[in-house]
Amino acid sequence: MDSYLIQMNGNSDIPSVLDVHVNINGTNPSLGKVRSRKPRWAVRASEMSKKTFNPIRAIVDTMKVEPNPNKPMISLSIGDPTVFGNLPTDDEVTRAVKEALDSGNYNGYAPSVGYQSCRQVVAAYYSCPEAPLEAQDVILTSGCSQAIELALAVLANPGQNILVPRPGFSLYKTLALSMGIEVKFYNLLPEKSWEIDLKHLESLVDEKTACLIVNNPSNPCGSVFSKSHLQKILAVASRQCVPILADEIYGDMVFAECKYEPIATLSTNVPILSCGGLAKRWLVPGWRMGWILVNDRRDIFGNEIRDGLVRLSQRILGPCTIVQGALEHIIHQTPPEFYHNTLGFLKSNADLCYTALSAVSGLQPVRPSGAMYLMVGIEMEHFPEFENDVEFTEQLISEQSVFCLPATCFEYPNFFRVVITVPEEMMLEACSRIQEFCERHYQGSEGAQDLECDK
Amino acid sequence: MDSYLIQMNGNSDIPSVLDVHVNINGTNPSLGKVRSRKPRWAVRASEMSKKTFNPIRAIVDTMKVEPNPNKPMISLSIGDPTVFGNLPTDDEVTRAVKEALDSGNYNGYAPSVGYQSCRQVVAAYYSCPEAPLEAQDVILTSGCSQAIELALAVLANPGQNILVPRPGFSLYKTLALSMGIEVKFYNLLPEKSWEIDLKHLESLVDEKTACLIVNNPSNPCGSVFSKSHLQKILAVASRQCVPILADEIYGDMVFAECKYEPIATLSTNVPILSCGGLAKRWLVPGWRMGWILVNDRRDIFGNEIRDGLVRLSQRILGPCTIVQGALEHIIHQTPPEFYHNTLGFLKSNADLCYTALSAVSGLQPVRPSGAMYLMVGIEMEHFPEFENDVEFTEQLISEQSVFCLPATCFEYPNFFRVVITVPEEMMLEACSRIQEFCERHYQGSEGAQDLECDK
Repeated sequence: MDSYLIQMNGNSDIPSVLDVHVNINGTNPSLGKVRSRKPRWAVRASEMSKKTFNPIRAIVDTMKVEPNPNKPMISLSIGDPTVFGNLPTDDEVTRAVKEALDSGNYNGYAPSVGYQSCRQVVAAYYSCPEAPLEAQDVILTSGCSQAIELALAVLANPGQNILVPRPGFSLYKTLALSMGIEVKFYNLLPEKSWEIDLKHLESLVDEKTACLIVNNPSNPCGSVFSKSHLQKILAVASRQCVPILADEIYGDMVFAECKYEPIATLSTNVPILSCGGLAKRWLVPGWRMGWILVNDRRDIFGNEIRDGLVRLSQRILGPCTIVQGALEHIIHQTPPEFYHNTLGFLKSNADLCYTALSAVSGLQPVRPSGAMYLMVGIEMEHFPEFENDVEFTEQLISEQSVFCLPATCFEYPNFFRVVITVPEEMMLEACSRIQEFCERHYQGSEGAQDLECDK
Repeated sequence: MDSYLIQMNGNSDIPSVLDVHVNINGTNPSLGKVRSRKPRWAVRASEMSKKTFNPIRAIVDTMKVEPNPNKPMISLSIGDPTVFGNLPTDDEVTRAVKEALDSGNYNGYAPSVGYQSCRQVVAAYYSCPEAPLEAQDVILTSGCSQAIELALAVLANPGQNILVPRPGFSLYKTLALSMGIEVKFYNLLPEKSWEIDLKHLESLVDEKTACLIVNNPSNPCGSVFSKSHLQKILAVASRQCVPILADEIYGDMVFAECKYEPIATLSTNVPILSCGGLAKRWLVPGWRMGWILVNDRRDIFGNEIRDGLVRLSQRILGPCTIVQGALEHIIHQTPPEFYHNTLGFLKSNADLCYTALSAVSGLQPVRPSGAMYLMVGIEMEHFPEFENDVEFTEQLISEQSVFCLPATCFEYPNFFRVVITVPEEMMLEACSRIQEFCERHYQGSEGAQDLECDK
């Protein structure tokens, strides 16, 4: 005999509880039926947690990744510039945090959207006549991931859809699906340096489209959109009245021959939430300092979106206060040489990698212009042993101990992504191993040549 | 005449777009009707952002808070021990972060649940024979707020309900409502040092109850549950098969005469997600270092809840890596005197405040045993000028420049909350001004006395 407490229906504040003895062995079924509820342990994870899904993890975790024991592992898979120690942040950045610590002024709670003074600093740094920003237009967040989460959460309702680049960063889909938002992929064109297929993009817009995500410079492509291409994207958004969520975490991370244009500086009417942070430019992704810039020259977002962002920020409060306390120093005192050196190194590695892989039969690297990545097409018809990019990269690990992410992780099969932040000698060694791998498995076939003629 | 691009229905990847000229003036209505969609700017904030609601802000922002210009403001409203500078963190804590910075090892991404080594440190620190913990039982989060958010998000689906203390910390309701989870308030009993009304609690459980939030030590009450009371709470949870979300951010922050028992150490079967962090004990709430401890001796959560937490953590990644890098040093090297001094100060201030306000006619302070708060009942019948606690505290600002939060912020009218982390002389001055205020407005009435006789 177990004892249960059973709640009787009623709206009274006074508890009305009936102590019923239930015979577990079923010899007293009449009393058993009285139970309005069967207390039994059955704790299930929520639907949302089940819908939260990182495709990279799902793919990588199922890969057979036993590297060749005779070759040291070279991982070109993680978009973290700090992994190899060759790209430390600047001393001024570290010093700034120490000063914030020593002041003792940054241990308490900041406002959930960040200190007013920090918002002011970020606003002033990114403000320009074409896209003016004030402190109230800046929301500080726990990394750019939270910036994207808040921006999506304020713009889209469950049942709506968002337009996302393919290939593209997997977090957009992870966040959207967990919120019950549909993802529609628009194509990027490798043959046009990963520009957007604008017709395809526009064809996807419908009355349920909540926003368009534009990621420039791009992860995983390393591409940087020209001013005229950005204007064409804005024209689509303007015609279709779709606001833009600009993921510009790699902003300013472009090679010398190229110019980065924040998309908001080119917009005359399209309202834009631009997400950025310290992670990549200052090489401290673990510090989780991100922000949203609200660009809204025509007052289309109005107070509603800003207020919504403020409310949402109160759920978990903002980024670590000691990094906030260091922000002004970091933004103003980091010497220009620091950026210059980082970009010079990335450009040099990108060139090395592009040149080396261009010479490999069966591979089609796409030259990057910024960020820290390079996408490589696999002419699968020349590698008939492998079903797809996942198998190709799996076998590359087994034989050569080189790990590149299969671009299926970015919804783009038959490519793989190379991270170019590794030390130069490692970059060269990796390319040489990739070459060896491809030479071993490449099969020139007449059928394949016929296919090429058909193009 | 304006030009619109109109999407034709179709599943083809090839965009099928028709350029239609629509006469805005209505002289060509037939073509106008072709539009399947009217592109017009109408960006609305999401339902979720509208449902995200901080009751404290909502109440405080509408209060008329013009302090008396002749008296310097004393704010006893914010639960942040760092505001007045009298409670700095320990030097070891600051030193630990500097070492983490100097190492250069903590700039990159950590796993979304935190570094394995840090999870191990937290697990070892909180593990005990009655509630053993391993690294995999610890999820590091961006502050205790995110810990509570993740714990709620993994346990509850929209349409379910959670049981929340009244009076209680407002974040539970803010988060739950934003997720579409219903909040059911169970009563705490001021006359029993804010113990839970267990019958009321149990009467609220139904088949949609996803979890029971137990906040011990309590914000706003400053109460600490005894071992036997915690066992009775566990008995309810066990009978009703409801898991517990324990908000133990004030764990160990109890005065000498009292003992804090983590609820998981008393549970033999009820699965518990315990939320904590560095914020209060180490006096660095702005650093946003929190955690969830998964206590599940009977394997009721199983892998499902743990996996769900891991997946949810991937949405925005974890806490700042430089604080993670300092965690082992902070936990192991902070001298015991630091905690001892903090608690001695809080106990002394609590006694001062309790003693002073106990002597004030019309007030009923409840003696705290921990945390940093003291709740004070207002015998409203003796202050007929004021409609409620909000008006009472408003007028206290106007006349005496003392700001206490009306407990309506905690769903508990006719009380106010005093924060006891202010310097001693400020605590005394505040109490003296509250006394002056009450003496001025107190009205002893026979009616009121009759009411008391009726009790």
